[in-house]
Amino acid sequence: MSDFAGYLGDCQQRINTFLLEHLQQRQPRLQRLFEAMRYSVTIGGKRVRPLLAYAACEALGGSRQQADVAAAAVELIHAYSLIHDDLPAMDDDDLRRGQPTCHRAFDEASAILAGDGLQALAFDWLSRLGDYPDSIRLQMIQRLAQAAGPLGMVGGQAIDLGAVGEKIDLDTLENMHRHKTGALIRASVQLGALASGQASPAQLQALSDYAEAIGLAFQVQDDILDIESDTSVLGKQQGSDLARDKPTYPALLGLDGARDKAVQLRDQALHSLAGFDLRAERLRQLADYIVQRRF
Amino acid sequence: MSDFAGYLGDCQQRINTFLLEHLQQRQPRLQRLFEAMRYSVTIGGKRVRPLLAYAACEALGGSRQQADVAAAAVELIHAYSLIHDDLPAMDDDDLRRGQPTCHRAFDEASAILAGDGLQALAFDWLSRLGDYPDSIRLQMIQRLAQAAGPLGMVGGQAIDLGAVGEKIDLDTLENMHRHKTGALIRASVQLGALASGQASPAQLQALSDYAEAIGLAFQVQDDILDIESDTSVLGKQQGSDLARDKPTYPALLGLDGARDKAVQLRDQALHSLAGFDLRAERLRQLADYIVQRRF
Repeated sequence: MSDFAGYLGDCQQRINTFLLEHLQQRQPRLQRLFEAMRYSVTIGGKRVRPLLAYAACEALGGSRQQADVAAAAVELIHAYSLIHDDLPAMDDDDLRRGQPTCHRAFDEASAILAGDGLQALAFDWLSRLGDYPDSIRLQMIQRLAQAAGPLGMVGGQAIDLGAVGEKIDLDTLENMHRHKTGALIRASVQLGALASGQASPAQLQALSDYAEAIGLAFQVQDDILDIESDTSVLGKQQGSDLARDKPTYPALLGLDGARDKAVQLRDQALHSLAGFDLRAERLRQLADYIVQRRF
Repeated sequence: MSDFAGYLGDCQQRINTFLLEHLQQRQPRLQRLFEAMRYSVTIGGKRVRPLLAYAACEALGGSRQQADVAAAAVELIHAYSLIHDDLPAMDDDDLRRGQPTCHRAFDEASAILAGDGLQALAFDWLSRLGDYPDSIRLQMIQRLAQAAGPLGMVGGQAIDLGAVGEKIDLDTLENMHRHKTGALIRASVQLGALASGQASPAQLQALSDYAEAIGLAFQVQDDILDIESDTSVLGKQQGSDLARDKPTYPALLGLDGARDKAVQLRDQALHSLAGFDLRAERLRQLADYIVQRRF
């Protein structure tokens, strides 16, 4: 098994190529829209969700190629959510990963439409690209639609907006993150597993448990990094969550408590993979990566 | 066959009930989001797209019940598109069908999220509600995703925004409308036909031709009504398209030319249905209704 950094690089390059190849369009009057979509799916990005899809597919003996469409679909949803979250009426961010956000690089209307278009494309691609049996496609679409929708990511964003300036407890914070980022991370693992064509219900459940834990770990680490990092590494203003009075794990647990929490969640994720063989090694490495990353 | 007004009323009541039943949610922190979604799918609305789905399904011998999910999915996409089109960064409308637009009744962030959530729900519902074979579901999802996405409705909105203040010709205007409203109207007919479980490729093609023609007819009539109606009937300011220097059919063809065009398109739609029996009568009546409506 090659080194983990090499694996990350390979998968990142693979998904970037796939996304760009499928976001080409020749109609002159659609150029700006497609440019805005391409811009948003290609500015920086760790590609955590595609990586999880690839690694979950491989953990069940599937090939990386089998997971391409699953990986692309979850990244399209992620990219659209960032565009809309950054809008002036939402988080009002000018920078994303050190680059101008979509509505700053283009304009607000283009950003709204680019996000809307990317969401539709995720379902379009899942419905026709790649080589999956109909029943697998439908399960992938259903899980992604629920993860993206009002009981998933969109609901989490609504909970988040409703909680700004409010003192919330740990349960409420976790409920928000389970919706806002957890649902799509879980879907990434599930879609990758489904793409292998070899996921038993028990395996899907174990992988969902894994995803649930690393989804929260990811968020805890995000909160920690928001305090620790400086702007140049993170690409957004340091401490910007605290400054906006957003609820965070360090605010509720202290910085050390938050660090302990991230490690506990990582261990919980690894425990969920106990029944998997060496082919799940990339998922195990990803769990480590998520709590150890510096940006 | 009962009178057409009765048919309209029955279908409208049926789809309203279906939509509201499926947009309930008990989680307190998701109330505002679901309220905004319910508000947007229930303010007024002629339900033209669900009507087309029902009528297309019945034209092929399917039941109204079979078309419920198809009808609901296309209306969810339509409702989301209106919310986002009304946003300040887009058309900046305060009124929609005489009621405050979603971002006026709630707030801009809620409106963005409600639209995003409705789009996801359309694909969620298509993937699991109702009783369709997998292959039919997938065709419905694919056609709706393409109609809603950057090569359909979202692309049309982008073309429209890019053309404001520009002098465009008839071909460009039609290209815009084929994307902006035509694609979803075509999908409404196609999804209804697919829902019947009895659509041959030739029938699907004939129904698509029908939909193509009435889609444009609908838009021509919209442009005519924008000039003719007063605010109280239309629920938006009279002549507001002209005032914003938006390209319209009456501006390019004159008012009489536009009226002729609407009638020609209606006739073309009826011609596409020549091979269908009496069960397609509702589709024929809908073609008339679309060019005769006063609001």
